[in-house]
Amino acid sequence: MNSPIQSKATDKQRQILTIAQPIILGKGFSAVGLNEILKTAGVPKGSFYHYFESKEQFGCALVDHYFEQYLTNLDRLLSDTKLTATARLLTYFEQWKTTQCDDTSQDKCLVVKLSGEVTDLSEGMRLALKKGTQAVIDRLSLCLAEAAKENKLNLGNTKTVTEELYYLWIGATLMTKVHNHPQMLEVAMHALESKLNLHQH
Amino acid sequence: MNSPIQSKATDKQRQILTIAQPIILGKGFSAVGLNEILKTAGVPKGSFYHYFESKEQFGCALVDHYFEQYLTNLDRLLSDTKLTATARLLTYFEQWKTTQCDDTSQDKCLVVKLSGEVTDLSEGMRLALKKGTQAVIDRLSLCLAEAAKENKLNLGNTKTVTEELYYLWIGATLMTKVHNHPQMLEVAMHALESKLNLHQH
Repeated sequence: MNSPIQSKATDKQRQILTIAQPIILGKGFSAVGLNEILKTAGVPKGSFYHYFESKEQFGCALVDHYFEQYLTNLDRLLSDTKLTATARLLTYFEQWKTTQCDDTSQDKCLVVKLSGEVTDLSEGMRLALKKGTQAVIDRLSLCLAEAAKENKLNLGNTKTVTEELYYLWIGATLMTKVHNHPQMLEVAMHALESKLNLHQH
Repeated sequence: MNSPIQSKATDKQRQILTIAQPIILGKGFSAVGLNEILKTAGVPKGSFYHYFESKEQFGCALVDHYFEQYLTNLDRLLSDTKLTATARLLTYFEQWKTTQCDDTSQDKCLVVKLSGEVTDLSEGMRLALKKGTQAVIDRLSLCLAEAAKENKLNLGNTKTVTEELYYLWIGATLMTKVHNHPQMLEVAMHALESKLNLHQH
């Protein structure tokens, strides 16, 4: 089931989703009970189904809501004409590194947190994650093509190179959680800089 | 808590862990009840704590047991002197691609499945995942150094290159789950072949 929430989530639904996000980012999807979310959101127990059809539909809405904010921020950065395309890309990945290494960050990656757990459990959540990650890759790919022109780099198919970089960063973020150490994202940053030919030879 | 199970798991513990693995690979850690595992293993309800101290310790033992088998298979492949180091590396990643793309595979990656979910929930499981992934990277790194020599490639620090490849493959595997499509692992394979300079220019 794909969520119909994205475009017409009510203020109350958005409030619940905003409050739920850090809880889910900490504990995952299955381990969090609806009562914990409702209690934190100050919504009366038993009223969950007034706002969401099911926990799965809530999960789909959560992913959609996450990407709505994520893509708004990404679009703002990528349309900043004061920066070169190279600087926009580097800023994006610098922010990625900073937010994912900081234990107190409220901006941890929901894709890294949930994808392993929920893609086998919910086709709707899988599709919401697919739509969101595809939208991120599409935007980054356009920016990388521009950065390649700026730096006169022949990267080949920039869509494929963007996918490779995105998967690397997703994997490095997952390993940063496992190792509780930022070194994995430094490896990913080094690989990005190499692709953009920013290292001195 | 780090698991003491690895070296002295009893036959019964191993039997339970072997039966539990595909269940956890499908549903994740939190969503699976102990009763489901015990029922499938034919172990009397209520006897779980005879075999494991807690669900967390069971989780640590599950990860250790997974890596015990994984590293045995990896060592067998990497010590196959009939193959060049390059062929050994390619065989490893070909097997990775095949097993992770096949929906019916019993050999899905437990690191990709569990890391996002459990690293925030259990320090013991996080440490077991850290120890296991580090052991995989160490082995692959030695093989990559040998492959670089064979192909007269100057890869720089082969440990860092191995880490980059491993994170890329972990991320591509996670995205293969999200997109339910093997294309992500084809991107990862192409990147590996490029590193090894196997593409014609």
